[in-house]
This record gives sequence, structure tokens and C-alpha cells, in this order.
Amino acid sequence: MVVDTFLQEKSQRVVSALEACFSGYTHAPDGLVDAMKYSLFSGGKRLRPALVLGACELMCADDAPGLPAACALEMVHTYSLIHDDLPCMDNDDMRRGRPTLHRQFGEAAAVLAGDALLTMAFYELARTGRADAVVELAEASGVVGMVGGQYCDMQAEGVVGDLDSLQQIHARKTGALITVALRLGALFGGASTEQLEALTRYGRHLGMLFQITDDILDVAGDARTLGKSVGKDQRSAKTTYPSVMGLERARAMAGVAAADAADELALFGEEANVFRVLPQYILERDR
Amino acid sequence: MVVDTFLQEKSQRVVSALEACFSGYTHAPDGLVDAMKYSLFSGGKRLRPALVLGACELMCADDAPGLPAACALEMVHTYSLIHDDLPCMDNDDMRRGRPTLHRQFGEAAAVLAGDALLTMAFYELARTGRADAVVELAEASGVVGMVGGQYCDMQAEGVVGDLDSLQQIHARKTGALITVALRLGALFGGASTEQLEALTRYGRHLGMLFQITDDILDVAGDARTLGKSVGKDQRSAKTTYPSVMGLERARAMAGVAAADAADELALFGEEANVFRVLPQYILERDR
Repeated sequence: MVVDTFLQEKSQRVVSALEACFSGYTHAPDGLVDAMKYSLFSGGKRLRPALVLGACELMCADDAPGLPAACALEMVHTYSLIHDDLPCMDNDDMRRGRPTLHRQFGEAAAVLAGDALLTMAFYELARTGRADAVVELAEASGVVGMVGGQYCDMQAEGVVGDLDSLQQIHARKTGALITVALRLGALFGGASTEQLEALTRYGRHLGMLFQITDDILDVAGDARTLGKSVGKDQRSAKTTYPSVMGLERARAMAGVAAADAADELALFGEEANVFRVLPQYILERDR
Repeated sequence: MVVDTFLQEKSQRVVSALEACFSGYTHAPDGLVDAMKYSLFSGGKRLRPALVLGACELMCADDAPGLPAACALEMVHTYSLIHDDLPCMDNDDMRRGRPTLHRQFGEAAAVLAGDALLTMAFYELARTGRADAVVELAEASGVVGMVGGQYCDMQAEGVVGDLDSLQQIHARKTGALITVALRLGALFGGASTEQLEALTRYGRHLGMLFQITDDILDVAGDARTLGKSVGKDQRSAKTTYPSVMGLERARAMAGVAAADAADELALFGEEANVFRVLPQYILERDR
């Protein structure tokens, strides 16, 4: 309940800010802007920007300084989904209950809209004047982070992997962006080193939790609730937490990650309560 | 001759700097790094980084402060070629005399290597601490710049366009990145507003010159010298300078752009001589 309210409120904040980002683009080609907006404003949980805003607010009782970073995170996340869905990658037809971008606008427009969103993320973030924030985001989303994780994930398809390689892949593919969301929120909120480090550890556990539950939903979730196809990990012979250890043990491991995450918040007062219950919420999510 | 020496010297400088950028990536997936390097170290004129370094040196008699921006420009240029060559875009098999990246490493790796190079460009640039430089590069390479130009170019295929729409497309697609190369070199060299504006105007003329000669080479050039296929503009019914005004008038227009570019350098002393002869060199290029 408290998490639902938090996510809804932060989602509204970031959607307004994202809309404002486009208001200056009067000279941009309409078709390309439409493609970018189609994916960016297609709903979704907005978890990453909510983490930025929540972390920023936790530091300085105001989420406004975190808005540019929240927008940047959502743009990077959206571009990664667009490119991931392409025929040469996961070849997905549906995303968030609608046709994927390349299905709706064509493949070339999807490649370019992804490129444009990634570039726009750095534009918005750099306009804050914080080059250190740009360094953080680029590191988390590049070859040692998210893109590297996607490459390893793709290479691993059809190969039976172990838990260690699975965790390596997901720490990059999902974990890096979730962790950097918390770090950027903390940075823009003026965190101390101790606070920054605690939120970084919280982010790592949360990222792992998120990926385990994602794998579980692909096995045990409902396609209509999820708004995307299920069972595709199994069809593409992907190594997942359930495939490595079985569904029940994967659920138990997610429970441990959720508890570990909550434990990292001892430093903070009751303002951190929403972050304390968020792991349980992710653990129980059905979409 | 003086331009050849200049380009060779600056090319060596930027290749060494690019290699150094990869030295920290011990935890990156080898296959993805190999794909990025395949395209990044496949030769090419290295015109954009040479413009960064030349502009920087013109300002402060040292090109070293411009090296991170030079690397960033070459990474953005390379990523744009990789994505442009994809089957869903220009579907090119050859680039710089070798198979294109997706031909050599597969389509998925080509999409991801492009994404990783774009991200790495912002990483390297942001590490200078200059967020304003990141803003400039993102603006020039995003939806109002290069990516927007590529989208319009693609949309215009098979549609008979006029000179005005052609110039709009190329100002974004090629011009923006060439202009920002000069601007970033000037910024890192400590240019005055007057110097920055002169180099910006020089860059706009140079960008147009470069595109006109590119179109001419596709009609009148030699595939072996160029290292890529020719005649493809005509096959894809693309509007080009020669198709709009004929080959001879296109050559004359390129000559005017070259003269206009050189005229913008009145502010500078003989240290700018290589920039004075560069337009003529581009005018006469055969690759």
C-alpha cells in the first residue's frame, strides 16, 4: 500500500518531468519523437526513477534535485528495452501490453529511437552540471555494466550455466542500473559517503531480488497481468534462477535478498520506511 | 601534403588515446570489446578527432587537452556507422575495405557494440569534469542532431526532395558532428567566444563541403579506393547533391563551401594554415 502510493506519486513526478524534456525539441523530426514517446510513455513500473527520487528525498527531504537523473535513468532503461526487443535480439512482439516499438514503427526507427533516448539521457543529466553523475551513469549502462550484461546474457543462451555466471550476468544487466539509480539519487540529495555506500549495498541486493523475481514471473507469472509473453526463457533455453535451482529454492533466495536489502537501511530513520518495505513488495509482485 | 601529415599525426595521437581508453576494461566481456575494437580500429580518415585536436592546438598550442573529446567524437562516429550499416538500415556488407561489423560478429553484437561505444563516448568525455562538453556532444549527436538527421535521411529515401530539405538533413546528419568537433576542441583549448563562433561557422561550411563531396564520390568515386560500395544512393533512389543539381553544379557548390570555410579563419594567424588548406583537400579527396 505504502509502496503503491510511493510508486504512483514518483511515477507522476517523472512523467511530468519527461514531458518537459521534450518541450524544447521543436526542431526534431516528428516521427522519431513519436517513436521515442511511444516507448517512454507506455506505462511500466518506473521503478528506477522512483528509486532515484526516493533516495534523493531520503537525503534532503526533497526529490526535486533528483528529477534530471530520474528522467535519465528511465530513458536508459527504455532504450535498453527497445533494443532488447529487436528481431536480432529477443525478437519480442509485445511489451507492456502493446506492440513493441519495431512492430509499430519499423526496425530502423526502433534502432534510432533507442539511440536517441540514450543520447538524450546524457544530455539531460549533463545539464545539471554534474559530470560525475554522467560518469556514474555511463559506467553502469555501458560495456562493464548493462550493455555488457546483455551481451553475456545473449551469449549464454542455449548454454547451461551455473549460479555464479548467472549472478555475474545479472549484476551487470539489471543490478548496475538499479544500483546507480540509488547512487544518483543520493548524490543529488547530498549524501555522505556512509549514506552513499549503504544505499549502494541496498541497491545490489534489490537488483538481485528484482532479477530473481523476474525469472520466477517468466515461469509462474500471467502474461496478461505482465503485459508481455511468458515462458520465453525456457523456450530460448536460457539459464535462470529457477532453471539452476528450481522454483522453490529461487523463491527462498529472493526472500534472502529481500531481507539483506532491508538490513542495509539501519543507518536511516523512519523516512526510509518505504525503502524498508519495498523489497517485500518486489518479492510478492505479480507484474 | 600538409593536410596528410596533419591527419596522420592526429590519427596516431587519437589511436593511442583510444587504446588507452580500453586498458581499464578488464572486467568487460571479451567478445563485445573485440567487436567495439574491430570497428574503432579499422582505419578511416579520423577527420573528426583531427578537427578536435587541431582546434585545441590552435587555441593553446597543445592538443593534449582535446584528447578525451577527440576519442569521444570518434566513438560516436563509429557507433553511427555500425548502426547505419545494419540490415534494417542501409544494409551494407563492406566498410573501410572489410566486412561490416554485423557481417563479422552478427547483428545483435553490432547493435550492442554500437550502444556500448556511444555510452563509452560520454564516459570518456564526462571524466574531464566538463559537463558542458557532454551537453554539446549529446545535442549534436541526438534527436536534434545526428540521429535526427539519419532518421530524416531514411524517411526521404525514394522521395524526390529539394535542395532545402537535403541541406536540412545533412546539417544534422554530418554537419552537427563536424561542427561540434571544432567546438569541443576550441572549448578544451580555452577559446574566447569570438574564436568559438568563428570555428563554429568554419565547421558548418566544412560539414556541408564534406557531405557534397561524399555524395559526389558515391557517383564518381572508385569502390576500391573508397573501401565501400558506390552507386548505392542511386540504387536506393536517394536525394543527393548530384541528383538535385547535377554533378557539375554539385562540384561548383562544393567549391563555394570550401572557399566560405577558409574565409572564416581571418581571425587566426598562420597556426591556422592547416585549417585553411583543409577545405581544398576535402574538395579534391578521392576517398
